[in-house]
Amino acid sequence: MSFPRLSPLIVEDAVSRTLKEDLGDAGDITTNATIPASAQARAVIAARKPGVIAGVDAALAAFRLVDPTINLTVENDDGAAVNADDIVLSIEGPARGVLSAERVALNFLGHLSGAATATAALVRETTGTNAKIVCTRKTTPGLRAFEKYAVRCGGGANHRFGLYDAVMIKDNHIAAAGGIAKALAAARATTGHMAKIEIEVDGLKQLEEALTAGADVVLLDNMSTDDLKRAVALNNGRAVLEASGNVTVKTVRAIAETGVDVISSGWITHSAPSLDLGLDFL
Amino acid sequence: MSFPRLSPLIVEDAVSRTLKEDLGDAGDITTNATIPASAQARAVIAARKPGVIAGVDAALAAFRLVDPTINLTVENDDGAAVNADDIVLSIEGPARGVLSAERVALNFLGHLSGAATATAALVRETTGTNAKIVCTRKTTPGLRAFEKYAVRCGGGANHRFGLYDAVMIKDNHIAAAGGIAKALAAARATTGHMAKIEIEVDGLKQLEEALTAGADVVLLDNMSTDDLKRAVALNNGRAVLEASGNVTVKTVRAIAETGVDVISSGWITHSAPSLDLGLDFL
Amino acid sequence: MSFPRLSPLIVEDAVSRTLKEDLGDAGDITTNATIPASAQARAVIAARKPGVIAGVDAALAAFRLVDPTINLTVENDDGAAVNADDIVLSIEGPARGVLSAERVALNFLGHLSGAATATAALVRETTGTNAKIVCTRKTTPGLRAFEKYAVRCGGGANHRFGLYDAVMIKDNHIAAAGGIAKALAAARATTGHMAKIEIEVDGLKQLEEALTAGADVVLLDNMSTDDLKRAVALNNGRAVLEASGNVTVKTVRAIAETGVDVISSGWITHSAPSLDLGLDFL
Amino acid sequence: MSFPRLSPLIVEDAVSRTLKEDLGDAGDITTNATIPASAQARAVIAARKPGVIAGVDAALAAFRLVDPTINLTVENDDGAAVNADDIVLSIEGPARGVLSAERVALNFLGHLSGAATATAALVRETTGTNAKIVCTRKTTPGLRAFEKYAVRCGGGANHRFGLYDAVMIKDNHIAAAGGIAKALAAARATTGHMAKIEIEVDGLKQLEEALTAGADVVLLDNMSTDDLKRAVALNNGRAVLEASGNVTVKTVRAIAETGVDVISSGWITHSAPSLDLGLDFL
Amino acid sequence: MSFPRLSPLIVEDAVSRTLKEDLGDAGDITTNATIPASAQARAVIAARKPGVIAGVDAALAAFRLVDPTINLTVENDDGAAVNADDIVLSIEGPARGVLSAERVALNFLGHLSGAATATAALVRETTGTNAKIVCTRKTTPGLRAFEKYAVRCGGGANHRFGLYDAVMIKDNHIAAAGGIAKALAAARATTGHMAKIEIEVDGLKQLEEALTAGADVVLLDNMSTDDLKRAVALNNGRAVLEASGNVTVKTVRAIAETGVDVISSGWITHSAPSLDLGLDFL
Amino acid sequence: MSFPRLSPLIVEDAVSRTLKEDLGDAGDITTNATIPASAQARAVIAARKPGVIAGVDAALAAFRLVDPTINLTVENDDGAAVNADDIVLSIEGPARGVLSAERVALNFLGHLSGAATATAALVRETTGTNAKIVCTRKTTPGLRAFEKYAVRCGGGANHRFGLYDAVMIKDNHIAAAGGIAKALAAARATTGHMAKIEIEVDGLKQLEEALTAGADVVLLDNMSTDDLKRAVALNNGRAVLEASGNVTVKTVRAIAETGVDVISSGWITHSAPSLDLGLDFL
Repeated sequence: MSFPRLSPLIVEDAVSRTLKEDLGDAGDITTNATIPASAQARAVIAARKPGVIAGVDAALAAFRLVDPTINLTVENDDGAAVNADDIVLSIEGPARGVLSAERVALNFLGHLSGAATATAALVRETTGTNAKIVCTRKTTPGLRAFEKYAVRCGGGANHRFGLYDAVMIKDNHIAAAGGIAKALAAARATTGHMAKIEIEVDGLKQLEEALTAGADVVLLDNMSTDDLKRAVALNNGRAVLEASGNVTVKTVRAIAETGVDVISSGWITHSAPSLDLGLDFL
Repeated sequence: MSFPRLSPLIVEDAVSRTLKEDLGDAGDITTNATIPASAQARAVIAARKPGVIAGVDAALAAFRLVDPTINLTVENDDGAAVNADDIVLSIEGPARGVLSAERVALNFLGHLSGAATATAALVRETTGTNAKIVCTRKTTPGLRAFEKYAVRCGGGANHRFGLYDAVMIKDNHIAAAGGIAKALAAARATTGHMAKIEIEVDGLKQLEEALTAGADVVLLDNMSTDDLKRAVALNNGRAVLEASGNVTVKTVRAIAETGVDVISSGWITHSAPSLDLGLDFL
Repeated sequence: MSFPRLSPLIVEDAVSRTLKEDLGDAGDITTNATIPASAQARAVIAARKPGVIAGVDAALAAFRLVDPTINLTVENDDGAAVNADDIVLSIEGPARGVLSAERVALNFLGHLSGAATATAALVRETTGTNAKIVCTRKTTPGLRAFEKYAVRCGGGANHRFGLYDAVMIKDNHIAAAGGIAKALAAARATTGHMAKIEIEVDGLKQLEEALTAGADVVLLDNMSTDDLKRAVALNNGRAVLEASGNVTVKTVRAIAETGVDVISSGWITHSAPSLDLGLDFL
Repeated sequence: MSFPRLSPLIVEDAVSRTLKEDLGDAGDITTNATIPASAQARAVIAARKPGVIAGVDAALAAFRLVDPTINLTVENDDGAAVNADDIVLSIEGPARGVLSAERVALNFLGHLSGAATATAALVRETTGTNAKIVCTRKTTPGLRAFEKYAVRCGGGANHRFGLYDAVMIKDNHIAAAGGIAKALAAARATTGHMAKIEIEVDGLKQLEEALTAGADVVLLDNMSTDDLKRAVALNNGRAVLEASGNVTVKTVRAIAETGVDVISSGWITHSAPSLDLGLDFL
Repeated sequence: MSFPRLSPLIVEDAVSRTLKEDLGDAGDITTNATIPASAQARAVIAARKPGVIAGVDAALAAFRLVDPTINLTVENDDGAAVNADDIVLSIEGPARGVLSAERVALNFLGHLSGAATATAALVRETTGTNAKIVCTRKTTPGLRAFEKYAVRCGGGANHRFGLYDAVMIKDNHIAAAGGIAKALAAARATTGHMAKIEIEVDGLKQLEEALTAGADVVLLDNMSTDDLKRAVALNNGRAVLEASGNVTVKTVRAIAETGVDVISSGWITHSAPSLDLGLDFL
Repeated sequence: MSFPRLSPLIVEDAVSRTLKEDLGDAGDITTNATIPASAQARAVIAARKPGVIAGVDAALAAFRLVDPTINLTVENDDGAAVNADDIVLSIEGPARGVLSAERVALNFLGHLSGAATATAALVRETTGTNAKIVCTRKTTPGLRAFEKYAVRCGGGANHRFGLYDAVMIKDNHIAAAGGIAKALAAARATTGHMAKIEIEVDGLKQLEEALTAGADVVLLDNMSTDDLKRAVALNNGRAVLEASGNVTVKTVRAIAETGVDVISSGWITHSAPSLDLGLDFL
């Protein structure tokens, strides 16, 4: 597994908390009542629909934290495009542990593969353009590291991770600072030299102002593709240009073809449907 | 706010963790650079699309944990059906705090209102029938208490919360236990008297076997509406009947009209799109 | 070890916290000063009094978390009835680790075996009757999962685990809701279909009212055995009947012989004396 | 409340954890279903049996963490000796919060007052002697700070809190170190000057050896009262003498009258029965 | 207090953990034994030596978490330059709480003011140059957010906060990637558009290579001031230039005068001596 | 490794928290971009300056928690005196893990070896005297257990660990209690028999008063060496005498030669410079 992964510290913390959420104080009372401790299981987790996989490490952790003697083989790892019936994990071991961990493993895999699949759909549409698909801070509470990772699995790239790692100046900041130039100057003055500065503009006039003031990245929100083209021309490579607003599988190619560098989508993290996966006993 | 709410202990823990996820070690470097500490803001959180609200307590906690001097007024509380432009929260206080908490508040509200809205859509379709819409354990990792609560806000009811609070015997349990009657007997023998026992059946013959063996609830998975009607007739009130599988806004009324007691949907928690809400400065 | 166990996640969390409670920041300053690092120990944990064992996993975790190289053999596992001098665990490894973990291991084993032993004493008295011995929510703060498990080790069964997994309507709830029928209707209306509903009654008239209203379980608190017999007759199998109040080793058989289904005792969790166990070097 | 209390940080952590244990993800489903949000309650927590109170801060925290608007008045504070029907706390506020916090408050109060009451029983027997009653490390897992505090409420004093704050050399340490003198020398050499050093001896010869080697405290385990008297005479004030073993309400006076300084009891923390207290609505 | 502060969530977590570290399970046994609960104190925290203050919020939190009734007045806030005997905080309230919180408050204030004072010493030397003084990742374990904040209090700026928020390519990365151009290309390809990319070079030839390949920031490690001047000339404004290595109060001005943009120092966070402050009763 | 170590529970908690501090949600984005997953590394951690090593377990844990397949060999363990270029750890394994854990490992090692080195410098000066060098409670927030351990690695001993494990009566306590004798009596009355009692005096008259009242330890703060000699003579072995104030490498020998038993220094924990260590690839 050579793909750069999430830190195991993050994965284990989240999976452990989610297992406790599902097992509670009484544990899996159904399995404990009906499955003999000696029963062994062979099972697979398979896709029911086509998609892109993300979250394999969380699924592995779910089984291992419940029973470290379960043997697990990754058949399609994070980043893999799968079809219906393709196997993601092969599982062999005590049936009790397999059944008790099943739902947590599937909930992680389904949720994260859903985000990866949505990302991949946008990425596919923009093939041949220079535009990167990136996520936003519109993520599910508590799962930002996971969803940002799933976006990478889907072929996308990451915008800033939070309020802490880059500056993003929006209309309210501009108004409070007294204009674009002043806002950018204020950010430059107090922010470390390792943080990029992005600013949102509402038209070409503001764009020129932002470029003159030395913005690293400019966000063009909800502009028409015609305006985006004009912005690209005006920019002439000075800053990174990011387009956002009304980004769907249908609209994304036209946006990408305007020549913007980055297209950001909240939908791939906050509203992508879960990928349908299931666990089958063999 | 008289609606039974989530425990504040749960809300504060999750919101605090999510704020740390967004603020990191450096905090909101944009706002700190561009907004004077003395700047005051008046703002609202408003719906951009129609839906049902859930998550108001988390939104309140996000603002209060960032700055306890922010004044907050709930205009449309959890469970309220709103239209586009309806205001959910009115906010007044230091602009820095309002901006630093904005995204976490919106991420909770959007995600949970999304689940409530999806639930309400199914509930609306089943008006006049006896069927309750319930959720499953297919929830987003770490957010089960919140999503189960959102389902209640949307007019739905809750299935079991985890592996710990009720017995749900599925095909693999039945196979390992040696049949429906044996599985039910095993569950009855080792489970406390306060836990209900549900069993999944694949047809009318198994249903009769389950009813004879005294199941409290029977899950009818992926049956045709004709079979569901037959099952209702056969059951004749002996057990609670739950239908699942292929439950959508389009199919749910026909399922409900078969006379089943409960219809369960994973979609309302794992794949409901986020409700679009935004924060606007006044 | 085929007995269904507590989740290792729960055990490790609690044992780890308890080890920190005993070791503090300075660690075992006595052992570190007086025992050479190279010293090896062979030791046993043995019962000093007869009883029923519970808590072996916690004892194992205590030694392993202090020193994973300690070898441990379970001689009498959870649920075993032991006599004085019977060995529970055989231990072999670095003497420092054995001594540093000793007290935490014994505190878990003694406390939980005490609950199991008390439970077993009540279970033994009711041999041949249909009554199950169950625990209550009167548990030691922070140890509910462990004490509920110990009750199972002693041959008892579990009542609800908390406020969250079943409905239990008591006098104050009845008064506020406007009577037994209304309280049961309210519970039925807002509680999911997987939660059982129990109601406490103070006499046969209330019992009939509760049965008519469809209670799943009825709690008969502090009734005489004569009244319990009348309740059993009146019930005629409609609901599960639970007796509580003044349950001791001396009274429990008479209560069980009334024909009630369940007898609940707070004493087995909140006041059972610790089972005397000790660690002996060989 | 001028009695030195447990740190509120410790109390709030433990009570918060215990509330989560009882409320789970679904909360108090009974109260939420049957009690209107507007219902107000006036209630008291009263003793059902005589005893000594400990744990009032935990009870207060339980109510306040569930609903900070509940008004609480302490009628009999930690350390108070109460009779049956004496009121400990008066409570006024939203009925839902009162009922949801009740069990956690009572579980803390009952458990800790049980330890205080047991301690007080031993203390009472030793009136007029110089012997202090002290606890041991045989405490309930996770509750050491609370039980040590309860012992103080009952008029007892504290032995060391853990392995970390004082040296206690037992037989295995002596054997490994090569004798009493060597064990004491080793402890003296590596332990800081602020840690007292106690050693366990099995007879008068070992006692003399320990005294000569400069032990601060000597533990006389399971000695007859005649031997204890001889030990007191031999010691002649050189070290603090601690007696342990077979300490009960019946035996403790005779032990105290031997002239030992300290009598330690594990029973007061690991096996004291819970004090019976209840919450009554007015 | 208008200076942008650390998030209160971070401050309260760290202070609460540190209070537990100091209070343990037994609490402040000295103060509890010797100070009456009713005793009131008026006290100040004053500097014993000149310096720059940082950590006031942590000091406030220490007192408030121990006793919320203590009144606190900030006399010299974070960022203030103080002389010996200048007062930082005025304190009034129960003497027990004041004494129990004193050491934790002073330990935070002394440690963080030490870092701020060291930073200010470097900043002072570079007055009139364009060079910013920045910190590194060589911080005290667990205190990065605090120390980075203290650097800002001392007039410095922040380098990246961790491995996560910016790219810093060092010699081992260059070697593994196959050269400067390849390393920068690899970073550009997989890193989001909001992360700046810095690379370390060992001479002017590598510098030109890095500039050609489009590095945002170049680290010039341990270069002579003559070489730094040449690097500034060669760079001609293309990238941000950072100098590091052998940065002391004596050397820093000469480095700054070479024209580099940023001078980084590990010493200000890992080895700055604590600022001497004390608490005096009035 | 036979030296008594910090509990692995403490080490793993702190290292895990520090790794999360450095890795954040995005992880080591530099290494992940530039180093192939298959790249192997052989590296050493070596001293750049002479010193005494402390913190090896934390360094080991940093690498193992990031990648358990990294092989680690301890070349110079805690307590070892090293010269520049001496190797502390040899490291072999996946290059990504080695680079991602490097800074956390070095930050622990550098900080703790700094404290050990400072301690050793004082210890060396006092060779041949009876005085022990001990630390205080002036430690870095969150790292007390580690710094107390580092002091032991440097040949020093530990004063009390916190407010909880020994009594230390200072001027404010004496004033509030009504004098030295009353303060000591109060402490004796409420403190357990296992806690030593120290009192601070400001001259020989107070010293005599403290000795008469039976103090275990007396703190002589900021006395001249002449006064310290007089105090030693007056004490005549009755109590342990501790000197503090103005303790430096230059002054410590003269203080030790006065005959005091213990010399305490805050500098060794709060202001010792980090020991310079680095990681070199082979």
